[in-house]
Amino acid sequence: MGGLYFVLGLFGFPATKIPLMIVGYGFGASFVALFAQLGGGIYTKAADVGADLVGKVEAGIPEDDPRNPAVIADLVGDNVGDCAGRGADLFESTAAENIGAMILGATLAHFNPAGFAGAQAVVGVMLFPLVVRAFGLVASIVGILMVRAREDEDPMHALNRGYMWTAGLAAAGFAFGTWWLLNPPTAPAAWWHFALCGVIGIATSIAFVYITQYYTEYRYRPVKSIAAASVTGPATNIIAGFAVALECTALPTFTIGAAIIASYKLGASSGLEHAGLFGTAVATMGMLGTAAYILAMDTFGPITDNAGGVIERSHQPDAIRRRTDRLDAVGNTTKALTKGYAIGSAALAAFLLFSAYLDEVAALGSPLTAVDISKPEVFVGGLLGAMLVFWFSALAISAVTKAAVSVIQEVRRQFQADPGILKGTSKPDYGKAVDIVTIGALKAMVPPGLLAVGMPIAVGLFFKLFHVGAETVAAFLMVGTIGGILLATLLNNGGGAWDNAKKFIETGEYGGKGSFAHKAGVVGDTVGDPFKDTAGPSLHVLIKLLSTVTLVLAPLFV
Amino acid sequence: MGGLYFVLGLFGFPATKIPLMIVGYGFGASFVALFAQLGGGIYTKAADVGADLVGKVEAGIPEDDPRNPAVIADLVGDNVGDCAGRGADLFESTAAENIGAMILGATLAHFNPAGFAGAQAVVGVMLFPLVVRAFGLVASIVGILMVRAREDEDPMHALNRGYMWTAGLAAAGFAFGTWWLLNPPTAPAAWWHFALCGVIGIATSIAFVYITQYYTEYRYRPVKSIAAASVTGPATNIIAGFAVALECTALPTFTIGAAIIASYKLGASSGLEHAGLFGTAVATMGMLGTAAYILAMDTFGPITDNAGGVIERSHQPDAIRRRTDRLDAVGNTTKALTKGYAIGSAALAAFLLFSAYLDEVAALGSPLTAVDISKPEVFVGGLLGAMLVFWFSALAISAVTKAAVSVIQEVRRQFQADPGILKGTSKPDYGKAVDIVTIGALKAMVPPGLLAVGMPIAVGLFFKLFHVGAETVAAFLMVGTIGGILLATLLNNGGGAWDNAKKFIETGEYGGKGSFAHKAGVVGDTVGDPFKDTAGPSLHVLIKLLSTVTLVLAPLFV
Repeated sequence: MGGLYFVLGLFGFPATKIPLMIVGYGFGASFVALFAQLGGGIYTKAADVGADLVGKVEAGIPEDDPRNPAVIADLVGDNVGDCAGRGADLFESTAAENIGAMILGATLAHFNPAGFAGAQAVVGVMLFPLVVRAFGLVASIVGILMVRAREDEDPMHALNRGYMWTAGLAAAGFAFGTWWLLNPPTAPAAWWHFALCGVIGIATSIAFVYITQYYTEYRYRPVKSIAAASVTGPATNIIAGFAVALECTALPTFTIGAAIIASYKLGASSGLEHAGLFGTAVATMGMLGTAAYILAMDTFGPITDNAGGVIERSHQPDAIRRRTDRLDAVGNTTKALTKGYAIGSAALAAFLLFSAYLDEVAALGSPLTAVDISKPEVFVGGLLGAMLVFWFSALAISAVTKAAVSVIQEVRRQFQADPGILKGTSKPDYGKAVDIVTIGALKAMVPPGLLAVGMPIAVGLFFKLFHVGAETVAAFLMVGTIGGILLATLLNNGGGAWDNAKKFIETGEYGGKGSFAHKAGVVGDTVGDPFKDTAGPSLHVLIKLLSTVTLVLAPLFV
Repeated sequence: MGGLYFVLGLFGFPATKIPLMIVGYGFGASFVALFAQLGGGIYTKAADVGADLVGKVEAGIPEDDPRNPAVIADLVGDNVGDCAGRGADLFESTAAENIGAMILGATLAHFNPAGFAGAQAVVGVMLFPLVVRAFGLVASIVGILMVRAREDEDPMHALNRGYMWTAGLAAAGFAFGTWWLLNPPTAPAAWWHFALCGVIGIATSIAFVYITQYYTEYRYRPVKSIAAASVTGPATNIIAGFAVALECTALPTFTIGAAIIASYKLGASSGLEHAGLFGTAVATMGMLGTAAYILAMDTFGPITDNAGGVIERSHQPDAIRRRTDRLDAVGNTTKALTKGYAIGSAALAAFLLFSAYLDEVAALGSPLTAVDISKPEVFVGGLLGAMLVFWFSALAISAVTKAAVSVIQEVRRQFQADPGILKGTSKPDYGKAVDIVTIGALKAMVPPGLLAVGMPIAVGLFFKLFHVGAETVAAFLMVGTIGGILLATLLNNGGGAWDNAKKFIETGEYGGKGSFAHKAGVVGDTVGDPFKDTAGPSLHVLIKLLSTVTLVLAPLFV
């Protein structure tokens, strides 16, 4: 992105115009992230569900058994969905946030010509996001080096310790960055106001990490309540889990709300003109400052999950499996907290893009002074935006079922074509199964993908007929983002809580493995799978995609 | 309401000021509806779940067995939740809509002094809602008389036929009412514009009835897909059901959106000034014109359900039970479609109250020209509003579990105190069980009830600190309503679909009663129970309560 900026500068474009020109970069990142996260999410769960149904239920062979042709596809899926998908998701957040922050930086420099006199100061403001991102990377590397666990220690403690180092160093980097680049002579208090905004962002990311742990770790009340409800069967397990999933939207909402308002007020009182939104932008940068560390924690999940699979296939003693099971439960939590973090950062990044969109509409000669949802058309736009989130999730969950069918058919075909596979005398064609899931997942992602891209365009063009296209799209975007934040949190944390409720029972509670409660726990876990690995994470991408699509296509709606 | 209007008129209050004074009437209706629907919903499901768990699972006696002390409480619950609760819900919609429409009528008369000259014409506009309501009642009575079913006919057809009669007559009543009362000499086209608005409202209610039937009847794809997914167990049943529940939000949203915009545009082009919102008000009246018939269809549900229970307890032959089972499935659909209708009318009624709120804030001397969600505080208000809907649902679902525990403990106590009950030699104390559930339900409704009333006040007072109290509350209200419409639709239709997927399997599909698929269907049905009978319907009440609370307390936030 720095390179892009530099190249466009060489072409002679004025420095403050460049950010609006690299909006296409964000759109590209969104589009790829949609493929990686939605397609990857469908892939991973289709392979998982398909392999389980055809292997465990039909053929009667255990999970992760090497005779199952879909077993490699299942392991591959963990990487596709959790590593590639989440990586693309956070990359998109970073891209969206950089663009939003650079546009707001240009606006800030424009409104405060005395404070940012000279080309160097202006470029400094705009490149500030890239500079603090670099500090964040260094902080993450140091944090990762700090993760050393004693054999008897809770692995989560070691990960949290490294995270605290990262957060502390990132905060120090922020203070230095703001003092260096956001320190205009006209507003001596500005730099520490912005540094505090960065600290708010970092604190927000810490809050998300702990809130997610509370809702998805089996040491706390929510997961324990699901495990306790499993004693009366799968129905009460699902009801208890859904209640937890609904409830867990409250604290993240308060956190995001507090972060937006506090950073806005700090920015507005910095002594610079029009600096409120820039304060929010700096908080977003703070939140994303620890992204590299979080992503490293996330990949911990699939690694331990796959390690468990390899141990199963190589018939290791139970003691070893128990150890990887412990790590696997931690992996579930780190995967869940990455998703919590990802949705929090997506919310903040989307909030920045709203203002970028309003700036862009104004630049097109039709200034939107307000997005007034008391107008009927605009209210309906908001309603449609929130509905899109529900509809998209429905299509994403259905896509998993569709793609899983293709896996099941392929495995059945292989079992029939070569009876030696089930006897263990011949090797199944793992590669073919991987191919089939890939094709199935790509096909199944067409309807949700089309909906995500097509609906904002349709809404904009339709309401243009009533001359409120741009304003209605803005409401569509904003209320859609609100719906996305809530539904994604519900799906992600709910899924994580169900998964760990099962893991909690497997530690021996309520009868342990094989008990009635455990069977109920398995049902909850399976239900949570497409929630937390397909629909939930795809919603992060959706809300950013909506922002970038509308940003790029704004000229159509005005 | 007409009486209230008349009495206040006697005190000498000017006619156009009276509607704003009877806002308290709407608030009272909301409050009672919250008790009836939330408390009733908790009651019915706590008794149902409690009786089943302690009877079927622990004591091993069949459902609806007279030896179970909670069996009467279970039957009472159907009436408390579905009849009393839904009645209060629709009464509240009617009250809210009448108040909203009368306030808008006063505004209309104020802006068109030439069209509505003289006290009689002004009072005519304002009392128009009450007049067409009276026509709607007559239409419903005629419609109910038209329900005659042949023995071999689908009972749903007979009910739909009566509904069509009601809708047709209500439309005729509307045309007459608008020609009589909304026919100012200055705008000769106004009356038929408003008559068309009424027709739009009636068409909306028909659309809701058919959409709900599509999503909850087992003749159509959605419920069939859930039944088919039951073959692979409870987890796939739940996933398929949740996908249906998410998907079914799409069509109602398009319908409400189209109704709001079309009636607004018709009103705006009626030739009168400021008549757009009054057009929407007339559409709302149209939607509620058939309320009495819908309520009659709704009570069909608990009647057939309880008839089935009585047949079970009196050991009738299977052929008779099969007949009531068929009626029971129709009852599930009529209950579901009443809820669909209730949320649709709640959405329209709430939309009217928004404008009443904005009028009231303006009357308090602080005119809100826009509710601008691009302001950070206002955006956060919207986010909090949508979150309230999720949190409230979590508390409502948890309340069922809590109250069910009190039932289970009472039944256990009775079984222990008198072993003769289980042997069938002595009669259990049914009354005591009814008492216990009532107390349990009332206690359990305290947390969600407090949240519903407390949160709008807290949001208003907090944001008043930033001088945006009234505007933030407006966004809280509007986005909360959007969230409520979607989540209630999801919960209601999802629950209905799960219930009928089980009923579909019981007709002999996928192995029929007692099969593996049926067991999975029972899990889905149980999960759907607190969704469709507690949380979903309580959300209808919540969104109207939010509107009336903020309307009454607006002076606090300005």
